[in-house]
Amino acid sequence: MSAASPTSLELPNLETIREALQRISPHIHRTPVQTCASLDAMAGAQLYFKCENFQRCGAFKIRGATNAMALLSDEEARRGVVTHSSGNHAAALSLAARARGATAWIVMPANAPEVKKAAVRAYGGRITECAPTVAAREAAAQEIIARTGAVMIHPYNDARIIAGQGTAALELLTEFPDLDFILAPVSGGGLLSGTAIAAKGLRPSIRVIGCEPKNADDAFRSKASGRIEPMEHPDTIADGLRASLCELTFRAIRSQVDEVALVSEAEIVEAMRRVWERMKIIIEPSAAVAAAVAIFRKVDWQGKKAGVILSGGNVDLGQLPFGRPR
Amino acid sequence: MSAASPTSLELPNLETIREALQRISPHIHRTPVQTCASLDAMAGAQLYFKCENFQRCGAFKIRGATNAMALLSDEEARRGVVTHSSGNHAAALSLAARARGATAWIVMPANAPEVKKAAVRAYGGRITECAPTVAAREAAAQEIIARTGAVMIHPYNDARIIAGQGTAALELLTEFPDLDFILAPVSGGGLLSGTAIAAKGLRPSIRVIGCEPKNADDAFRSKASGRIEPMEHPDTIADGLRASLCELTFRAIRSQVDEVALVSEAEIVEAMRRVWERMKIIIEPSAAVAAAVAIFRKVDWQGKKAGVILSGGNVDLGQLPFGRPR
Repeated sequence: MSAASPTSLELPNLETIREALQRISPHIHRTPVQTCASLDAMAGAQLYFKCENFQRCGAFKIRGATNAMALLSDEEARRGVVTHSSGNHAAALSLAARARGATAWIVMPANAPEVKKAAVRAYGGRITECAPTVAAREAAAQEIIARTGAVMIHPYNDARIIAGQGTAALELLTEFPDLDFILAPVSGGGLLSGTAIAAKGLRPSIRVIGCEPKNADDAFRSKASGRIEPMEHPDTIADGLRASLCELTFRAIRSQVDEVALVSEAEIVEAMRRVWERMKIIIEPSAAVAAAVAIFRKVDWQGKKAGVILSGGNVDLGQLPFGRPR
Repeated sequence: MSAASPTSLELPNLETIREALQRISPHIHRTPVQTCASLDAMAGAQLYFKCENFQRCGAFKIRGATNAMALLSDEEARRGVVTHSSGNHAAALSLAARARGATAWIVMPANAPEVKKAAVRAYGGRITECAPTVAAREAAAQEIIARTGAVMIHPYNDARIIAGQGTAALELLTEFPDLDFILAPVSGGGLLSGTAIAAKGLRPSIRVIGCEPKNADDAFRSKASGRIEPMEHPDTIADGLRASLCELTFRAIRSQVDEVALVSEAEIVEAMRRVWERMKIIIEPSAAVAAAVAIFRKVDWQGKKAGVILSGGNVDLGQLPFGRPR
């Protein structure tokens, strides 16, 4: 396999991620890295926040989606792409497909929030609704593939996606090469896998920390047991972190992630509040999971330098978790 | 009068503002200027947002407060400073005074929100509570001055403050010298006066637009009638814009502001929502007033370049104005 055209089920390496960044850079934002003295004091460390909440579509997902779309042949692009996602990947793939002039078929549960359907439609994605089960979702995707020949672009079990997601860490470490730690949230594991591959490739001594809600702790348990332990009923406010690891991402995470740190639902909300209040930026609960690991010192790192990937900023302002002020 | 030590009741000029910027630069953030394609499309113009929500204390007010504190003699600083404010000026003066090693006495109405009192206390300000009337406020301030010899630092009727607030526009126009318009919210008029003096000084052809809630339209009415028309019962969500012009700021605004544009309460909330959703940054309602003038095209400017001063980002997350999603 040439690095420029990885098969979709072989893990990328640092070189593949570098190529992905070159490929997608004209189409994405180079997001800023922000710091905040008062959050540093809470964390007991120097934090470097990679602000993917300012990314196109409001999340890092456009990186992987753009990379995957760019690697399609013209003939594949003509057939279009299909995915199942009710979140940021669906919107990002819709936008990336439109930029390539391709159709994106998005399978979403019928009960997905209207705000998420609206985002997909706004970017030109074509929604197929299905029952909210894995079987219904896969059946709907297969039906579309059979009918249209569309190419499946899985949200994370795909090397093109993982390579794209790894470009955020690549940018961060290019700008701040001496980080001691890097934190990223983990759900299906695309972002964390890409982050670990990029970070360990650039700086073998860096410690890579996956950040996960206690209430959706499949990555934590999988790393502990040595095999994929799917999450049966994730019950977390971090709506982007309800998926479970797959074969490809587990392989990367098992070998290249040093630790998975867990945070409670209360810690997630409190970290989100503190980032909003102190940094004046909007992050979504999934991004707050990484911030919570930092702020609540789930890692032994006194005085060290840590990169924190704030994965996205897509929230429903009509349904915020903040109650009355304390 | 030398430019370096203006009397507090003579308007600053561009040179005074330049000196203020040099004086305060080591103590404040140089805030970023951000753009947003989707808000440009709504506005029908190219918008350059000066993000004072990312400023120290979360608002531009630290600029004027720092300038005023720096201009005190050592003997004055020893006596301390006093002001009446229940908002961002109180917190900013507390912080600026602490940086100078001086005491800040803050007169606040007893019914001010606890979150605002907490901010003042966190920065070391000493709060004196009073009844929520102008007479009680002034009596409390006079009592402190009589007892301590503290120097009054008025929130806006003070050239040192106006010069400091003008430094935001100075930074913006230094970075983007070819703006056709500049928008700033107006309350007591310190920010708008400083903005107008800096902008017209640097670029006489620029149009300076004051942005005001319809429900607190004293600047609009004062400009129309040619004399100060105080606001009796301002009823606006823009809690930073409830004060009325004073003699000093009215003089600047009458001569150097081209227009005062008004927006409704619904427009303020909607603009705030759009900035949060599209730019992923937190602005307070007072800042949203300027964004609303832009987004709802209250100015005739098709295709032009406009600077918008986002004055602050201090909101109570427990009391947000966003209802259910539309």
